[in-house]
Amino acid sequence: MKKQIRILGIDDAPFQFTDTKTNVIGVIMRGNGYLEGVIRSYVTIDGDDATRVCKEIIQRTRHRKQLKAAMIDGIALGGFNIVDIESLYKTTKLPILTITRDQPDFEKIKHALQHHFSDWEQRWSIISRGNLWTVTTQHKPIYVQAAGLTLQEAKDIISLSTIRGAIPEPVRIAHLIASGITRGESYGKA
Amino acid sequence: MKKQIRILGIDDAPFQFTDTKTNVIGVIMRGNGYLEGVIRSYVTIDGDDATRVCKEIIQRTRHRKQLKAAMIDGIALGGFNIVDIESLYKTTKLPILTITRDQPDFEKIKHALQHHFSDWEQRWSIISRGNLWTVTTQHKPIYVQAAGLTLQEAKDIISLSTIRGAIPEPVRIAHLIASGITRGESYGKA
Repeated sequence: MKKQIRILGIDDAPFQFTDTKTNVIGVIMRGNGYLEGVIRSYVTIDGDDATRVCKEIIQRTRHRKQLKAAMIDGIALGGFNIVDIESLYKTTKLPILTITRDQPDFEKIKHALQHHFSDWEQRWSIISRGNLWTVTTQHKPIYVQAAGLTLQEAKDIISLSTIRGAIPEPVRIAHLIASGITRGESYGKA
Repeated sequence: MKKQIRILGIDDAPFQFTDTKTNVIGVIMRGNGYLEGVIRSYVTIDGDDATRVCKEIIQRTRHRKQLKAAMIDGIALGGFNIVDIESLYKTTKLPILTITRDQPDFEKIKHALQHHFSDWEQRWSIISRGNLWTVTTQHKPIYVQAAGLTLQEAKDIISLSTIRGAIPEPVRIAHLIASGITRGESYGKA
């Protein structure tokens, strides 16, 4: 796989309990870390529009034809607004990965969904549908779900787009921008 | 000069005539193009707070101690809100460069200031105080004003922080973020 492939990275911005929406940032990067575009959209906190918003980001960007994959920071954007990566892949034909630094605690997530959402079974079915892969990096391992990619392809894309640490550049940069524009200065890790 | 030096890049966001303020984005990058932080602030369109806002960005960032220079996209942020780079350098002790892709038409700027601002002489004196250097790049030349740097130092910093085209990465990335978060998708060149 070429270092120059374009990858879309997506992350949401931090939010407060009083907010109803939060920013979502998309970045178009080459595998080698060269940034080519920045997109802003937003999702409803704990809503059900994250999948639609990701579809729109992918379908509307002027870089669509160059994109080879999208990476999302986690399985949800804006709280428990779950991204249905199978649906996203089917609609857009773009391979999708979700990346998390910490191993998701699925029992805890299920418990939280049951407590807070009348449609918890729907949300849970999306989350629990895919396989969770543990992908080793030169740093710590990361946890990955994917649609439209084999495990080996996912590993290759992660490897070629990671410069330092464990998190691939498209997700790391989307995180820096999303947190920076919301908090005034970026902080923490994707 | 080392490739790893940290440079702050600053650009303003596009705005409409009905806006009173516009976003200013700061990015902290290593010379090799590795992004380490994103800052958001804002300036008054055609106001006189651009110098103060830049001072605050420099003084407040957690990356202050690592910064070796700041690069601003142009001599003003938010219309004719002029950045006094001599004052900025004196207060912060951080060398400052302004970068423009097109040669500034000083007669046209002076004319516009005279027509629109009662304090035009003050604004004009800031703009016309410094030398304008033409710096050749591997692409087209760029136009540079500087405070706290020799011409050779300015050239070195520009050279080490430019990856493709004529515009150094800190300014190019600040532009992509500022235009992307404001318009929905980034466009054009810094």
